[in-house]
Amino acid sequence: MTTTPDADIARLIISCPDQHGIVAAVSTLIAELGGNILTLDQYSTGVEGGRFFQRTVFHLPRLAARRSEVEQEVEFRLARPFSMEWQLTEAARPKRVAIFASKTDHCLLDLLWRHRRGELPMQIAVVISNHPDLEEDVRRFGIEFVHVPVDRENKAAAEAEHLRLLDGTVDFIVLARYMQVLSADFLEKIGVPIINIHHSFLPAFIGAGPYQKAKDRGVKLIGATAHYVTEDLDEGPIIEQDVIRVSHADDVAQLTRYGADVERSVLSRAVKWHCEDRVIRHGNSTIVF
Amino acid sequence: MTTTPDADIARLIISCPDQHGIVAAVSTLIAELGGNILTLDQYSTGVEGGRFFQRTVFHLPRLAARRSEVEQEVEFRLARPFSMEWQLTEAARPKRVAIFASKTDHCLLDLLWRHRRGELPMQIAVVISNHPDLEEDVRRFGIEFVHVPVDRENKAAAEAEHLRLLDGTVDFIVLARYMQVLSADFLEKIGVPIINIHHSFLPAFIGAGPYQKAKDRGVKLIGATAHYVTEDLDEGPIIEQDVIRVSHADDVAQLTRYGADVERSVLSRAVKWHCEDRVIRHGNSTIVF
Amino acid sequence: MTTTPDADIARLIISCPDQHGIVAAVSTLIAELGGNILTLDQYSTGVEGGRFFQRTVFHLPRLAARRSEVEQEVEFRLARPFSMEWQLTEAARPKRVAIFASKTDHCLLDLLWRHRRGELPMQIAVVISNHPDLEEDVRRFGIEFVHVPVDRENKAAAEAEHLRLLDGTVDFIVLARYMQVLSADFLEKIGVPIINIHHSFLPAFIGAGPYQKAKDRGVKLIGATAHYVTEDLDEGPIIEQDVIRVSHADDVAQLTRYGADVERSVLSRAVKWHCEDRVIRHGNSTIVF
Amino acid sequence: MTTTPDADIARLIISCPDQHGIVAAVSTLIAELGGNILTLDQYSTGVEGGRFFQRTVFHLPRLAARRSEVEQEVEFRLARPFSMEWQLTEAARPKRVAIFASKTDHCLLDLLWRHRRGELPMQIAVVISNHPDLEEDVRRFGIEFVHVPVDRENKAAAEAEHLRLLDGTVDFIVLARYMQVLSADFLEKIGVPIINIHHSFLPAFIGAGPYQKAKDRGVKLIGATAHYVTEDLDEGPIIEQDVIRVSHADDVAQLTRYGADVERSVLSRAVKWHCEDRVIRHGNSTIVF
Repeated sequence: MTTTPDADIARLIISCPDQHGIVAAVSTLIAELGGNILTLDQYSTGVEGGRFFQRTVFHLPRLAARRSEVEQEVEFRLARPFSMEWQLTEAARPKRVAIFASKTDHCLLDLLWRHRRGELPMQIAVVISNHPDLEEDVRRFGIEFVHVPVDRENKAAAEAEHLRLLDGTVDFIVLARYMQVLSADFLEKIGVPIINIHHSFLPAFIGAGPYQKAKDRGVKLIGATAHYVTEDLDEGPIIEQDVIRVSHADDVAQLTRYGADVERSVLSRAVKWHCEDRVIRHGNSTIVF
Repeated sequence: MTTTPDADIARLIISCPDQHGIVAAVSTLIAELGGNILTLDQYSTGVEGGRFFQRTVFHLPRLAARRSEVEQEVEFRLARPFSMEWQLTEAARPKRVAIFASKTDHCLLDLLWRHRRGELPMQIAVVISNHPDLEEDVRRFGIEFVHVPVDRENKAAAEAEHLRLLDGTVDFIVLARYMQVLSADFLEKIGVPIINIHHSFLPAFIGAGPYQKAKDRGVKLIGATAHYVTEDLDEGPIIEQDVIRVSHADDVAQLTRYGADVERSVLSRAVKWHCEDRVIRHGNSTIVF
Repeated sequence: MTTTPDADIARLIISCPDQHGIVAAVSTLIAELGGNILTLDQYSTGVEGGRFFQRTVFHLPRLAARRSEVEQEVEFRLARPFSMEWQLTEAARPKRVAIFASKTDHCLLDLLWRHRRGELPMQIAVVISNHPDLEEDVRRFGIEFVHVPVDRENKAAAEAEHLRLLDGTVDFIVLARYMQVLSADFLEKIGVPIINIHHSFLPAFIGAGPYQKAKDRGVKLIGATAHYVTEDLDEGPIIEQDVIRVSHADDVAQLTRYGADVERSVLSRAVKWHCEDRVIRHGNSTIVF
Repeated sequence: MTTTPDADIARLIISCPDQHGIVAAVSTLIAELGGNILTLDQYSTGVEGGRFFQRTVFHLPRLAARRSEVEQEVEFRLARPFSMEWQLTEAARPKRVAIFASKTDHCLLDLLWRHRRGELPMQIAVVISNHPDLEEDVRRFGIEFVHVPVDRENKAAAEAEHLRLLDGTVDFIVLARYMQVLSADFLEKIGVPIINIHHSFLPAFIGAGPYQKAKDRGVKLIGATAHYVTEDLDEGPIIEQDVIRVSHADDVAQLTRYGADVERSVLSRAVKWHCEDRVIRHGNSTIVF
């Protein structure tokens, strides 16, 4: 499940119309370049007319120096003949992330703590919050905290400030219980994947107050869902979900406490997988290798 | 969790406005009658103005012979002073059930097999199906099978036949993947609790085709829900739920197979708990002791 | 599952030989004192010759002021006639705890964070470690940290220092991945319950290096166990256990990372239950209400 | 996770010392033969000096007719240069199995029922039991049942009868709660893999009476383990494990009932994976693709 990040480890993510010979073409190219495949996962939505996805992790001596050569080979020997979309990443270059939070700390702290432990291969550029409450907690981890207040009147200005802070400097954004809806305009301008944690087992209990809704409906399990953010609130591609058992005796406050445990573990897994290029979007679904 | 059914074991289920002294009154009455409390569970929706629920299992020598005496004492010393709703059952008199099925066998067979093993304290009066396919399987367990075809034209006649077969002879009904919607008229006339298994984690994926909907939405867990049937389809009080992990690689057929395992275990648990008087309806929720 | 701690909420924990009328006697006494039972759990190891256990949570106006009166009534009207062992605690007086740790932070930080959130009703008197590494993390929570080095030569002196620091000031001790074995002499002198987290699903993989042993044996799940410490290492009464799925592809380092998640959640649950007087020792087992 | 069995679908299982170019060599050979890779899983115990395992499922028109050609190519172009052990199977030729049982029915019936549903790609040659109790249940599925009594005196004769019944006619054996220990002599002579279900989470509670041992130790989860049988009882390579939560209130009979649910699902998964050539033994561990 894990690969030790290393200057010479590459990940090649491809997708293309399914057809014969893709695995052979990819693995032969890597072998001819002198690489050694460490793991290779693939999935096809259907042999006839389906779409093929593959994630190949390989070791290639002097990867950084040879990167443009490798990219050229992939482009000419794989991407063009197979009509591939592709992406090549280096394990030694962790993705840069901005984390958005509000007042609740559990998801944010779990990410910061796992990052400190070395479990999350990413660089945290900044934590942005619409409230100042968590500043001290964040700074203790040696991470920059920026307070950008948001209210109805200044929402556009706040998002402009977000863009100014982040533009071109982050590879993805995590909403760690950030309690503001991002505008379609912001999503378009920022142009990087955004991972959100929703405090229900989607598609159950879309929208605000899911634990109250869960209590009202009398469910016996509550859950959490990490998904990519799209313009349709709570409708984006799901990355990871989990649940926990509850009972009639648990009030909404208790559901919220139990839910916090699920939220933080689900979000941390989703972020880890995204950092490792394991998650591929396909329409409104994801393939998770 | 279990009590060996026994001629002298009683279960007293009560609900009333919460107030001081209910537990003392119940337990004192049982002690004075010569009974010994085996388990006692209680729950209050709130001390101020809340509703109180209690399930008391006790051993009382010569229970059957003394039943009307016990009922009188409960009525006069508990029910009237505390404005209680109450029910007294004997573990030695298992509930009688009719099981409705259609073509799929997994939920039905799991109930029949657990019943044969002695795990479900109930008497199966009859299995009714709108298809003849499972007749042989049912008869092998020594249980009566009645085929009552249902189509658009004859639905009222079929339900009349159901009523004729069941009227006054069963204590509850289980829909073990019965693929017909029961009419409001039938629900009213039959007048006994009906347990259904829905093949999704309600309230996600209400209605037909939940596994296809789950595939379309790209969820990472699928589930099943056992609930009491009300006039609002898939909206009745939830008794039990569970989920199983799935992946992008599972097609709808595979989701259906995984789901079958969850369905049968969830339904069997719900039926067992109902038979043991563990499930109390409260509005559109349940308390499960 | 939870009760809001409150100055007037009491918990009465009893155990005695099983016999008729115990529940009635307890609940009648509470009613006569003017108390209102909030939850009542009981368990008997067997009606004939078994032992009976009960945890009763009740609200009693002016509890603190009336405490000695209540204790006298319990002693004379319950404990003596029923040969009971009993304990009365007030929810408003949280237990005082000392946490022992070494170098790994996950269990300790989870306890400190949950305590700060208000999830653990206890007062942390001090964190003691045989290594200085976690001092800064602990102090940030406003909690005292004491470094007491331990090696083969000074073990007796170190334990004497522990006793000096803790004597009479704590109600229980938590070993949050403390990597030293406590001597039988220390256990006897300290005289309070000690909760340990063992990084395996006991009784599998007793002793040191359980994740390496798990890898060697090729298990498909790894687990963690919270238990009370006794003189027999890893043999004390189990409070809580849980597991997580692993695969052949996970190396020992990865098992250790996954295991850390299980360890922290299992230990936090066990500590919470202990604080709420939910855990009763019975021989080498526990009853968890 | 699933492949529809088909006359033209092959599975190639290989293992060899890890080195560069194995994936490329395998996938290139398949492409040159005109095959299309459907899924490919691989695992290496370590890049330097490790062992490499791969399971490749591919579609090859006219597979059955071309089988010897394919085998020759594998032998000369893969096995010899890479020092491979390998096995080629056809999805259209399900493995033949003998199931051994005793008196308890849950594991046996779950296998027979899943087989009837089409979930287990195998041919059940015979069910053999040392008791006659389950004969009727087995015959109802249209499957041969043979009663071979076993006692201390006739054990060698009974095993000789087993060998006579099975010799050369089955590809593997399943012990579905068969309560006799197979002799080392039998294991050697029968020469096919044997899957057993042990009613505990191994290595906890090795040997007889695991649910009683679990009760005595006071564990909070009980489990089951499917493993290949070796001469060392309960020590063979583990294929699959799972657990279920229990409480102090569950007696040994209840643990046994809960355990039966875990046993049947764990054994059925292990058998399915074995039938699909997903399980590769490596020393005393398994790789499960």
